[in-house]
Formats: sequence, structure tokens, C-alpha cells
Amino acid sequence: MENLKIDEGTYRHSLPIQIRFNDVDRFGHVNNNMYFSYYDLGKQEYLQSVLSKDFMQNDLVPVVVNIHADFFAPVYYADEIVVQTRISHIGDKSFVLQQRAVNTTKNQVVCQCSTVMVCYSLKLQASVSLPDEYRKNVSEYEQRAF
Amino acid sequence: MENLKIDEGTYRHSLPIQIRFNDVDRFGHVNNNMYFSYYDLGKQEYLQSVLSKDFMQNDLVPVVVNIHADFFAPVYYADEIVVQTRISHIGDKSFVLQQRAVNTTKNQVVCQCSTVMVCYSLKLQASVSLPDEYRKNVSEYEQRAF
Amino acid sequence: MENLKIDEGTYRHSLPIQIRFNDVDRFGHVNNNMYFSYYDLGKQEYLQSVLSKDFMQNDLVPVVVNIHADFFAPVYYADEIVVQTRISHIGDKSFVLQQRAVNTTKNQVVCQCSTVMVCYSLKLQASVSLPDEYRKNVSEYEQRAF
Amino acid sequence: MENLKIDEGTYRHSLPIQIRFNDVDRFGHVNNNMYFSYYDLGKQEYLQSVLSKDFMQNDLVPVVVNIHADFFAPVYYADEIVVQTRISHIGDKSFVLQQRAVNTTKNQVVCQCSTVMVCYSLKLQASVSLPDEYRKNVSEYEQRAF
Repeated sequence: MENLKIDEGTYRHSLPIQIRFNDVDRFGHVNNNMYFSYYDLGKQEYLQSVLSKDFMQNDLVPVVVNIHADFFAPVYYADEIVVQTRISHIGDKSFVLQQRAVNTTKNQVVCQCSTVMVCYSLKLQASVSLPDEYRKNVSEYEQRAF
Repeated sequence: MENLKIDEGTYRHSLPIQIRFNDVDRFGHVNNNMYFSYYDLGKQEYLQSVLSKDFMQNDLVPVVVNIHADFFAPVYYADEIVVQTRISHIGDKSFVLQQRAVNTTKNQVVCQCSTVMVCYSLKLQASVSLPDEYRKNVSEYEQRAF
Repeated sequence: MENLKIDEGTYRHSLPIQIRFNDVDRFGHVNNNMYFSYYDLGKQEYLQSVLSKDFMQNDLVPVVVNIHADFFAPVYYADEIVVQTRISHIGDKSFVLQQRAVNTTKNQVVCQCSTVMVCYSLKLQASVSLPDEYRKNVSEYEQRAF
Repeated sequence: MENLKIDEGTYRHSLPIQIRFNDVDRFGHVNNNMYFSYYDLGKQEYLQSVLSKDFMQNDLVPVVVNIHADFFAPVYYADEIVVQTRISHIGDKSFVLQQRAVNTTKNQVVCQCSTVMVCYSLKLQASVSLPDEYRKNVSEYEQRAF
């Protein structure tokens, strides 16, 4: 799956994360699972501000098909991190979201993640084609064709 | 509020809790906040098995008004705990749930909690009287009049 | 316990909270338990910036004795909230933290909470008197005597 | 990475999961992120009961390098699930854990996950070879050579 590999390139979307006290485990590190909550924050913000305000508000919602995450370095409670998000690929009914967590205290990518999602209609209870308008919005934001 | 004090007495309802790895903080203790998730497990089970199977399934749901919790001792990841639950008081529209977490490894009450809840109708968007049937079910289970 | 009641007055310390997607339950409301994570964020920030940078870094840590919380109104995912924090009482070994969550979208106090904490020495494994310096720092910040 | 693909075969290790009320999101589904907490429960239990009681207690701990998860079907609060765990590959310093979540109410695999971990020495602050004894313990449990 070529599109699951994170290549170099630009992330235009960045969201600072508020680390919570109980995100940290008994080794003093942010628990690996917490990154997925952080990625969710970036994902929500990206999907609603870039794809469409309507996404997840009405009939169409994203359904996660798979997740692939690589962990490079631990994060501590006192560290500051941002989540960067972009769409790297759009198929007919599915798209790939690439994200990474950057420790801005140490200027270090600590984790990267690819998520394959399908566009799902709650009404039809089935996956459907991504609206052209969404595709166009992403192209404009990411400044490349999809 | 007299009824907020936990008196001695019997707990008939007991639920073993599965402690999760990320319930534990950097001091190696179960984070204080996690007790409230544990109490929720006991609460759900009690309300549906004792009050009524319909509660929280249809129109009537419990809404938490306040919580008072006392913390007596830390719990570690390897400890085993159960949550004990009972209803100690039923008013017209509200009732008081008393709960405690018992470390069965050390035979020790580690935390106790009182929660005041009102019976809320989603349809009417207002608090309503607790159905007589619920009151009767609790009386039978707790073997005392309410 | 008179000091557990939240009186009117000024909160000088305020922290915006980043609500996470999985803070929200199946009714679309922020789960009651999540407020305690939000209060923790305010607590950490207050204790380290007001009491002392050393607090929780070295020997002395706060241990929660009890929590009393009142819930006034639901919060939704799209709402914005801040947590306000102050110390309302300092005893010899204990102190009382008062906090409230304010929905800034609706200008509404949605929850308030009092937490009694003791000052605990990890070295001595016992509660100890709050250092005079901490007391002084709080007095200066809150602009009243303790 | 061939070993990241979940093949058919036997899982000897199975752990029932206690789903919590706030695992469920506003769509009534167990939040995707929660599966990783469930997998952690299976992982902890497997590593300590199969690899070695000493693992994670003393010097050696597992560090997650990457995670790959496929999501097949939603889980609801009332469903019952178990997490199944096995080791599918052991290298010099790393090993691969395969896990899946099975909805026993519907007899359905709802999610599967591969996790690559390295054996890390807290003392040396470096990854180290997996002790022969651990390898032997896994072989005996899984009834195949590693």
C-alpha cells in the first residue's frame, strides 16, 4: 500500500495539543494510545475546516478503515506538541489522512500516522462517493490536484 | 445534606472492575478521576438490573446533580477492586446513589462516593417523578421501604 | 465543612480547555467524568505557577482527600469552556481548591468543584505542613491573607 | 512487512473486556481509540503470563515501534468482546504481537491489530536482545518454534 507511507512534504494544517495529566503513564511518558486522541483533534478540525463544514454534521461521516502509526520518541508531560494533518490521497469513496505529532520543545517528529477512511452515508447505511465539492476544497487547501 | 454521608450498612450489589494500564498515573497509582469511570460501571449495571431494564433505554435517563467523593488510599495496577452500589434515598424526582471502591487484595475501602441524580425525561426536557415501579423495584432489592 | 461551599468572588486564574472528541458521550454531552480531567489541567497549572515551581517536582505532592462537584448544565462538543481555579482556604497540612467550568460560548457556569488536598512528602511518606513560602505565594496571587 | 499481515491460525490467549460507558462516542459506537486500551489489557496479560513475570517489573520493558490496525465493524455498549493475543514473530531485539477483538455477541472479528515492539533496557537506555528464556516460554505456549 504505497499511499500508507509518509513521504516528505508540506503540512499546512497544524493544531497545538493540550496534554492532560492522565495522558501520562507510570513511566512518565505520554501513553501511546493518547496520540490517537490527539490525531482525532487534528482530524476533526481538518475535516470540518477543509473538506466541508457539513461533514460529520449531517448525513456524511468518515469511517476509519485502518490506522498505521510509527512511534519514534517518547513525549513527557512538560513537552509541547502539535499535530499536523493533511490528505495525501483521495479515491472514489475513500481517502488517506496523514498526520504527525511534532514535539515543538525539541523540534522532533515523535509519531506519524496514516488513516484510511471511507465516506459513509448514515441515511443509506453504505459507503458513498466523496462529493466533488469536498475534493475541490482539499485541492485548493493542499494546492495540488486530487 | 444528611443523605450525602455514607453510613454503615449492607451493599447487595458488587461489580469487579478491570483496571486498565492507562488508568495508572506517573506515581504508579490509579488516577483519582478513574474511580468515576468505575462508579459509572456500577451505576449502569445497578440502574438497569435493579431500577428497570427500560431506564436509559427509552425516555427516562438519570442526570447527575452532584458528586461527593472521599479518597482513603491509593490503588496500584496489580490490585483488584470491586465497586459496590446501593440507593440510599429516593425523593420525588431525585435519588441518592452511594458507592464505594473496595480493594479486595487488601480488604480495604479505598474510596466512597455519593451521587445525587434526577430522573429526566428526554421527551419533556424536564425532570419528572420517579415511576412508582422503579421505587418498588429498589425497595425489593434493597429490602427496605423508600 | 463551610469551606466546601463555593461563595461568590474573584477567580484570577483561568485556563481554556481543549475538548476532545471522545470526551463526548452517546447523548452528545461532555461526559461528567471529563470535568475532573479538565479540573486537573487547571489544578496543575495553578499549583506550579502560583504555589511553587518545585511543587510536584521534588518531594512534596498534593494528595486529594475529597471532591465535591455540582453539575448545572450540559456541555456540547462545539462549546468552548475555561476552567477557573483559586485556593479558598489553607490549613496547616491541607488546603481547599475551588474550581469552576465556564461555558464561554453561552457565558454560563456549567460545573463547580471543591477539592480538599493535603501536602504530602514522598520521602517521609506522611502529610506535612504546607511550606510558609507556598502560603505567601498564594496570598500574593489571591491578594488576601491566609 | 510480511509479518504485519494477520494470517489465519490459532489464538490461545483470550481476555474478556469490560466496556466502559465513556468508551462510547456520540454515534453510540465504541470509539476506535478505545480498542488500543483493550489491546493493552491483552498485551499486559500475555507478556506477563507468557513471556515472563519479570517483564515490565524490572529492567526490561517493551517499547512500541509501530501499530497497524484494521477496523471491520462497529461495537455497541451492550456488546461483549474479547481480545485475543499471540506472538507471531520474534527477531533479535524485536517481536510482533498480533491481536484481534472479537464481538462474542455476534461471533464477529471487529478489529485486528499488529504491534511491533522492541525489548528495551531501562538501565542501559537501549534496545537489547530478547532473553532466550522469553523466547522459550513463547515457543512452549504457542506450540511452535521461534
